[in-house]
Amino acid sequence: MTIGRWDPANSRASTFVGGKAGAMLVVSQNTRSGQPIAPAERIDVIAGISAEAPDEAVWSLCGVTTNDRYTTRSEKAELISRQAPIGRPEATSAALILLRKNAEWWAMSQDERRTILEENSHHIAIGLRYLPGVARRLLHCRDLGFDAPFDFIGLLDYAPAYEMAFDEMLGQLRATKEWTFMEREVDIRLVKIAE
Amino acid sequence: MTIGRWDPANSRASTFVGGKAGAMLVVSQNTRSGQPIAPAERIDVIAGISAEAPDEAVWSLCGVTTNDRYTTRSEKAELISRQAPIGRPEATSAALILLRKNAEWWAMSQDERRTILEENSHHIAIGLRYLPGVARRLLHCRDLGFDAPFDFIGLLDYAPAYEMAFDEMLGQLRATKEWTFMEREVDIRLVKIAE
Repeated sequence: MTIGRWDPANSRASTFVGGKAGAMLVVSQNTRSGQPIAPAERIDVIAGISAEAPDEAVWSLCGVTTNDRYTTRSEKAELISRQAPIGRPEATSAALILLRKNAEWWAMSQDERRTILEENSHHIAIGLRYLPGVARRLLHCRDLGFDAPFDFIGLLDYAPAYEMAFDEMLGQLRATKEWTFMEREVDIRLVKIAE
Repeated sequence: MTIGRWDPANSRASTFVGGKAGAMLVVSQNTRSGQPIAPAERIDVIAGISAEAPDEAVWSLCGVTTNDRYTTRSEKAELISRQAPIGRPEATSAALILLRKNAEWWAMSQDERRTILEENSHHIAIGLRYLPGVARRLLHCRDLGFDAPFDFIGLLDYAPAYEMAFDEMLGQLRATKEWTFMEREVDIRLVKIAE
């Protein structure tokens, strides 16, 4: 008769397991700020929330996709008209960007965060310039109900030839006011392999 | 070595267990829309996420408090200057309002939802009129990582003499455009008892 219990079948949830298994080979793993996480050789992506990671895993991180938090209707229309989905055959390069914002960010009101994110930092506008070359899926970790080490997991993929443009985009984002609120960031670059 | 695993000690999370135990006696339980939940005699409030409910429980619901989603700085300043915390000695009456919004609501962009919530429905302004008589804690369930039956759990408490004003407030909220997006609502009224 209980309801609201743990159900790993949530279609919006994904678990990323770092270790020796999985279809994504780690090319580099750089800690930009805060504590590093253990180095992984490969990353496995599992649908849903996986409460138990395999023994050989060095870390396991989960998140859920959710409703827009800042995007306006006109920005959303622009994004939808230009974006590509994750998983195109040519997008054999990928990045997992793990982010945690500080307490000051989360204590701000909605209008204050929106102003910093877009009016000051142009986060959405910068991302738009790199569509459809970069595909993006943003997973939220902060409200999962347990103390997650990151607030966000960004999964992005692109054709190998697009990596320089991808780095340029990240460089622009990292120079923004929004990024001054980032207290932890790990940038993992990946190549998708056929198992 | 794994990180990001289930940790029931999250200080922002609470679990509400309906059954025969707990310090809140159920006075009434009304389904306003959607599916009802099993009738409970008492409700127990547990800090953190409780993955296993006791055998005699008829339901278990959890949620987390999180950052503001719609409130502006000026609205927040007004709320902070007037609100009282949950748990004042005189606030022996309480309500648990379980809410689920429909897919149309969640598909809207941030500015569209804000416009409906405040500019059209005056949700924040209505709530402000009943401060500090009503204290409120809003828990979010939608992004817990499992398929929760409700999006929100509103826990509110007030002195028994304030119940008519509380009902008036709810009546105003239920008449708004925002409430047309509500696909499930259960209103549980409670009296806090000394165990």
